Order: sequence, then structure tokens, then C-alpha cells
Amino acid sequence: MVGVTYMLKDRIKKEELLNRVMSPQEAAVFIKDGMTVATSGFTPAGYPKAVPKALAERIKAKEEPFKINLYTGASVGDELDGELARAKAIGKRLPYQTQKDCRRGINQGNIHYVDMHLSHVSDFVRYGFLGNIDVAIVEAVAITEEGFIIPSTSLGNTPVFVETADIIIVEINTHHPLELWGIHDVYQPEKPPFRKPIPILKATDRIGDAFIRVDSKKIKAIVMTDIPDSIASFSEIDKASEKMAEHLIDFFHLEVNKKRLPQNLFPLQSGVGSVANAVLAGLVKSNFYDLVIYSEVIQDAVLDLIDNGTVKFASGSSLTLSPKGIERFYNNINYYKEKILLRPQEISNSPEVIRRLGVISMNTAIEIDIYGHVNSTNIMGTNMMNGIGGSGDFTRNAFISIFTTPSIAKEGDISSIVPFVSHCDHSEHDVQVVVTEQGIADLRGLSPKEKAKTIINNCAHPDYRHELLEYYNKGPNGHIKHQLNEALSWHMRYLQKKTMKR
Amino acid sequence: MVGVTYMLKDRIKKEELLNRVMSPQEAAVFIKDGMTVATSGFTPAGYPKAVPKALAERIKAKEEPFKINLYTGASVGDELDGELARAKAIGKRLPYQTQKDCRRGINQGNIHYVDMHLSHVSDFVRYGFLGNIDVAIVEAVAITEEGFIIPSTSLGNTPVFVETADIIIVEINTHHPLELWGIHDVYQPEKPPFRKPIPILKATDRIGDAFIRVDSKKIKAIVMTDIPDSIASFSEIDKASEKMAEHLIDFFHLEVNKKRLPQNLFPLQSGVGSVANAVLAGLVKSNFYDLVIYSEVIQDAVLDLIDNGTVKFASGSSLTLSPKGIERFYNNINYYKEKILLRPQEISNSPEVIRRLGVISMNTAIEIDIYGHVNSTNIMGTNMMNGIGGSGDFTRNAFISIFTTPSIAKEGDISSIVPFVSHCDHSEHDVQVVVTEQGIADLRGLSPKEKAKTIINNCAHPDYRHELLEYYNKGPNGHIKHQLNEALSWHMRYLQKKTMKR
Repeated sequence: MVGVTYMLKDRIKKEELLNRVMSPQEAAVFIKDGMTVATSGFTPAGYPKAVPKALAERIKAKEEPFKINLYTGASVGDELDGELARAKAIGKRLPYQTQKDCRRGINQGNIHYVDMHLSHVSDFVRYGFLGNIDVAIVEAVAITEEGFIIPSTSLGNTPVFVETADIIIVEINTHHPLELWGIHDVYQPEKPPFRKPIPILKATDRIGDAFIRVDSKKIKAIVMTDIPDSIASFSEIDKASEKMAEHLIDFFHLEVNKKRLPQNLFPLQSGVGSVANAVLAGLVKSNFYDLVIYSEVIQDAVLDLIDNGTVKFASGSSLTLSPKGIERFYNNINYYKEKILLRPQEISNSPEVIRRLGVISMNTAIEIDIYGHVNSTNIMGTNMMNGIGGSGDFTRNAFISIFTTPSIAKEGDISSIVPFVSHCDHSEHDVQVVVTEQGIADLRGLSPKEKAKTIINNCAHPDYRHELLEYYNKGPNGHIKHQLNEALSWHMRYLQKKTMKR
Repeated sequence: MVGVTYMLKDRIKKEELLNRVMSPQEAAVFIKDGMTVATSGFTPAGYPKAVPKALAERIKAKEEPFKINLYTGASVGDELDGELARAKAIGKRLPYQTQKDCRRGINQGNIHYVDMHLSHVSDFVRYGFLGNIDVAIVEAVAITEEGFIIPSTSLGNTPVFVETADIIIVEINTHHPLELWGIHDVYQPEKPPFRKPIPILKATDRIGDAFIRVDSKKIKAIVMTDIPDSIASFSEIDKASEKMAEHLIDFFHLEVNKKRLPQNLFPLQSGVGSVANAVLAGLVKSNFYDLVIYSEVIQDAVLDLIDNGTVKFASGSSLTLSPKGIERFYNNINYYKEKILLRPQEISNSPEVIRRLGVISMNTAIEIDIYGHVNSTNIMGTNMMNGIGGSGDFTRNAFISIFTTPSIAKEGDISSIVPFVSHCDHSEHDVQVVVTEQGIADLRGLSPKEKAKTIINNCAHPDYRHELLEYYNKGPNGHIKHQLNEALSWHMRYLQKKTMKR
């Protein structure tokens, strides 16, 4: 036990807190039926693992109805969303998720999911719009002598959660090295009418603390863990993603030639997931250098881009690295720590900062209609995939907003370009560039009719192009040409025949 | 002519410019086929009147094809949009319009209309995304000794238009008194990467100049006019608007009681038009006082609110006052000038400032679906009404975003609450409160299913409530319950039978 004691003192520097160390089971007792529990965790990095699992086991053993509202930064891993969803313990969930049992619970109607812009959550909590936060559970690498929290692989909404929660449970995860200390930049805006400008002028600017200030009397339990984040490895980069990356790089070169972008572009944002990672990875082979990233997730591709000099700095809210990626990061942590910064999601996704810096946004779509409306969330208009995440925060405020999607899905049975989106997350007013493996549609300054022809001709798959043009041409005249009785017919056909093809 | 000379020197203080005074017909010669013409004017105040009319007459007389791209701040009057639309001289139009012949041109497919967020336009021009601006035509009350322009009743996009245009035509409108000088606050953000925080901390803050700096060598023509803005009088306040205002005031009181809003609320934004004006006018009868307005248009109701002490200050981009309202304003201009400020639309509608100040947004919808998606623009999904205007700028960044609409239109044949919007301008992620004369739906923190029941029960008209519930209940399970084959059936029924009723 000598080694453990030493480790404890190394990780919990405020002595009075040492006696709050307990087992996950003991800590989970603080969580009662009906409570609102808010946790660290962002896409899915730095979320608490042991306490939620212990709670889920207790609930499953008792077989009594038990529901909490679960608020997080963004998506979290199986130990949290999965365990609690399988225990049927999630009443309300916000603002973003990707875990399959949680998703099933949402789509079967067992979980009330509130799909929110990631930048909205902190303010909604701060303003009291989401009720009282009973318990915050946060993963940390250490607690300082002042009782302040050093977060782990993400920042998310953790600052506002620990500030507003009645009590705090800390999971100190020794899987993360102490050297993470210093990668975070914690800044919290005041409430109106006292709110001031967020003083970020460059993506590299540090404006806050490397720790989260907290009243340590609220820390009622500390649980020691040693569990890695469960982040999936990225899929192999496919041909469609490679093609999309090529189109994007060509587009950037064109904008540079037209003097609308500087040689090293403006700060880049890239969405979550394999396609986004692959598109970003495509930049490795470009001849761009000294790029800067101002995004929400730092995925594996960013390490490659830093290593070969394409990217000189990356600001995000989480280290969303695959098991191989995180190993690589930890093996060279002092090198990467100079080039990577983690911010609260209300800062990484702040409209104010995004518009000021001129961020170029690149997000993936589920489907896009011929007028440029984007569905990012609901398959066939009804089944939640993940959520809107930060795509709206970036898209609306970007210097140039870009959406990528392969032109077809399900081996061609689904066209990602449709007459009318079955759910609209980003309207025609927000979407400036569409990229598929077929090509690129630059929609800036185009009317809906010009957009429709451009999207169909440049981006739709040839198998669907003719029928899309037919839909467009047959529409009665108007500002936008739609046949309302046919608008959703492609989706209905898919639901009935498992293909959008006639 | 002595009087005229004196007047000229009074209005054109830079002597070298006196020889650029000419007739509207002479000035219009600068405008050639294929040019992009950008003008002052916002909803519809402070737009140029004589030169566009002269241009339209020349085009109609010649009967040769002649098209310009017409960019403005927002909507403009008949002398500009109407005359040029009737002359078939508008090729592309952006970012907002309300004039009936222009609207007809758009819906008949003769005018390419680009419906943009009002806050986006300046940046798009500055970044070169909308091409070269050949000519700027701006209405002014005077030109200073330095050759700088004192705008008239609006600011809109005028600063960026005169900065980027090749040449400038100024209409000095002596209908506006010289005392307008001082009401404007002209601030232009730099381009990234040099852009700094917009230094507004309170709605009352002045951060710029009372004039538009301009290279006076670019002023090629000055035309003297004496024509009022053609702003329609507001409709009588109807019962539905009165009811909506009552619901809103009750809601504000509730939020104050819950300590989520201070006694004098946060700055208010209110949309354009009679319903918005009526809802704002409802505050006159409330017991709120010392309110502040941070909005885009200053409509008649604001004068009433200032006069009775409800409002102590109003910041906007235009004086959208009826003939009676502008007379009242001019009769007491020094009094009102201390309490009203006009800003460029990229500042009045700035996401950064709106989120910092905690602005409460109130905009009107054409239709709202049961999940809280809002259609602000296209009747039956295809026919442009006005445009999105600033509603998205405010809604997305508001402290609380509110949409108002009477629950029915066309004497009950249209339900404003529908299963699925026929065009989506604001998604479920953005819309927090819905108000009809029936009641109020507070959607904050609700899942789609909770939203649907709340909107149907609280806001739909009783004639349609049962059928909406039936639609909702019959939908297959999912995160969102939709029957895709029925989703747009209400609109199709209206198109066929001229009523949404079964």
C-alpha cells in the first residue's frame, strides 16, 4: 500500500481531501433516483467510468425503477452511456451521444434526448434553463493543493458543471499521465449583463487557467481509476474520402489563388468521425504548411499533420484519439503539449471566436437536399444517429462553411443528395460549399435554382442525377421549385423497398 | 437659386464635391448593364430613390435587355425594388426584400434571389464572395468637410459597400433634417486574422464614428432629393397580437420571479412588421420599465415605449417609422436622438454582441411544426414571402429565442402549426419558446416528443389540435415521430382545396 499512498499524494495534493477517497460503489450512493447528473466527457474522451458503472450495477441488481437526467459535454463511452442505458437508468439525455444502446433507447422512446448545439449547453445550465445539477462526476488527472481540478482528456462543459452542481464526485484516472497538466485553458464567461469579450485573438491564445477552480468542500467523493478512454479506431480511409479530400484541397488552392485565403489558410475545424478524420488526413499529402486548427475534437489525423509540419497548432475541447493515437500522444506528450490546447466547449465552439478568427468549417452530413439544406441527425427523418454536436456552431459562423458526404450510402441504395431533407439541421442560409466524391458545389451567392443545378450536376451520384433533375424540372415555378407530394418520396421508397432507386 | 446654393453648401461641406452635383438621370448613366449595384437601405429606410427611378425609366424607354445585381442592407422601397423590378432590370437580388413586384419577379423565376442572414452580408462582400461592387448608391443627409458621408435613416451595409465599391453615387435627401447627424455609430470589423473583439459591453455603447469614412475621389455623382421613405403605416393591432403580447408579458414576469431575468429584463430584439410591432406595443401596458432594445429595426412601437418610460434606450440599424412615426421623431429629434442609436447591420445583428448582451429575441414565423422547426420565408415551401432577415442572427444567439405567430391564417384555412414545415429556416435546436394567441410553449430542455405535445396543446388552434395529435400519435416510434407520407399532406391539401381542413 506504500506505492498507492504515494500515488494518492501525487494525484491529490490537498491533504484534507485524502479522506474522501472511496470505492466507486460508495461514491455511487450519492446518486439518487430522479437526480440530474452532469459529467465530464467529450466525444468520447475524459468521461467518468467507474462510478457510472457501479451505479448501473446497483440499479440492475435492485430491479427498482431508477432514472437520472444525464448531461455531458458531448458523447461519452460505454461505461457511462452504455451501462446506464442498459440499466434503463437514463430519463433525459443531452446534448450529444454516439453509444449504440443509448441511441437505441432514444429511438425506442425510452430516453428523452435533447439534441443541442454544443455551445449552448453551458449558458443554458448557467441561466438555470436545464434545472438544478445535483451531482457532477468529473474525470481528472489530479487535484491541486488548492483543491482545484486538473481535467483529463477533455474539457467540455466540466467548468460550468462543477460550478453549479450541489456536490462533486471526482474520478482520478491514473491511466492519464500527470503531464496532461498544462494542456487545458479554462475560461468561463460571466453572465449578462457583466459578460465581456472572450479575449482570444489567435487560435494559440491562452486566456485562462490550467485547472478548474472549485469549492473543494463540494467534493464529496474521490475514486481512483486506471481505465483508458474507449475511443474506437478509425476505419481505413476509403476512396470516397480520399476523393473528397482532393476536391477540398483543390478548392483551397483556388481560394488562395483568388487571394480570398492566405497561403496558410485560416484556422480549420473538422467534425467528428471517420469521414472527417479521413478528409483532414488528406491534407497530409497537400503542400500546405503552418496551418492552424480551431476545432472541437483533436482526432488522430491531427497528430500526423503536426508531425509532418502541415499543422503548427491545434485548439480543441478533447483528445479524441484512438488507442494507438493516445499511446503516440503520451509517448511524446511534452512535444505535443506545446502544439495542442484544450478549451471548454463554449469557447472552442464560440460563435464570437469562430467568426473573429475566420474559421473554415468542415462537417459531415447524413443527407443534403438540392437546395443545400443539411440533415446531420435523423436517418429518414425519425431515427437519431448522433446529434447536431458543434456543426451548427461552426457552420453558421465560419469564414467558409463546408459539408462533406459520400454521394451514396448502403451500396448505392441511398442517395445522400435528395429532393428534400427529411430533417433540417442546417438551412440553405448556412451551407456554402458541398463536397462529395463526385465533386464540389460552391453555393456562395447563388439563388436556390442555381444551387439546385450546381449540387445535382457536381455532387449527386450519376445513378441519381437524372431523377433529381427530373424532380427539379417538374416542380412548379416559385422561388424554390418543389413538388410537395414528391418531396419525401425518395425516403418513403427506401422505407418500403430498401432502396431509393425507382 | 440662392436658396438652393445655400442649401447645397449646408449639405455638402467639402467644396470640391459641389461640382459633382447632377441630375438623377445624369448620375444613372454610371450604371451599366451587368453591373453589381449595392445600395443603402434597411427595412425600408434610408434607401436611394431618385437615381434608381431614373435608371428604371431609361431602361423602360430603351426596351433593351438590361440587368444589374442589386445588393442592399435589407428591404427597400418602391422607388428602388419596385421600379427596377417592373423594368425587369434585377438579375440577382440579395439579401432581403418585401416589395411586391420584386417578390413577384422572384417567384416567377425572373429574379435570382439569395436569401441571406443579414449579419453575413458585410463579411461576404469584404471577403470577395459576392464579386466586385461596381457602384454604391447611398442616401445621406450630408457630406462632411472631409468628404465623409452622414447616412440618413439607416446604416445597413452602407459602410462596407462604399468601402469596396469602385464608384459611389450619393443621394442627399433634404427631407431628412441635418439633425440626424450624430445618431449613427459606424464601426467596421477588420478582416481575419486581424479582427478584434467588437467592444460593445452595453447596448448603449458607442464604439465608432458618426459618419462613414470614404475616399471622396470615389464619389462621382451627388443627387439632391427631397423624398420621404415609403414605409407603410402599421395595421391596427388585432386581438391575436394583443393576446400574444399578454402571454409574452406573463412569461417575462414568470422568468423574473424565477430569478432567471432581472427586473428590467435583458435587451430586447423584435422582428419586422405589424405583428412584431403589435407585440412590442403590448409592453406599453406592462409594468416593466427601463428596458433596453438591441434590435435591427426601430418601429413605431419603440417611440411609444420610450415616451412612457418603458424603454430607456434603443439600438438598431434603421428608423423603420411610419409617416406619422417619422414626423413624430423629427418633431422631437434631439430628445429621441439621445435614446436611439443606429449601427451597421453586422453590428446590430452580430452573434458576438447578441450572445454577450443576452438579447431576448422575438421574431414572427410563417409556420412552426410540432417539433419546433420554423419556416420564416417560403409560403407552402415554394413561394418567397420576404426572407430570413435577421431572425437567424438573433434566434441562434439569444438568451431566450421566441417565435410568435397567430395560430391560424386565411380565416382559419391555414394552421400555422403544422406536422412538418414546408421550409425550414430555424431548426428545433434554435427555437426555445413558441407563442400564439392560444398560449405559450416553453421548449427549453424538452425532447422532440415533449415539444410536440406542448406545442399542440398550448399553441395550436382548437380546430386543428385533434388532427395534429392524431398525426403525432400515429407516427411510428423513433426519436422524432413522423409519417413521411403524411408529413406535407396539410400543405398539399391547402394547395388543392384552399384549406388545410379535412
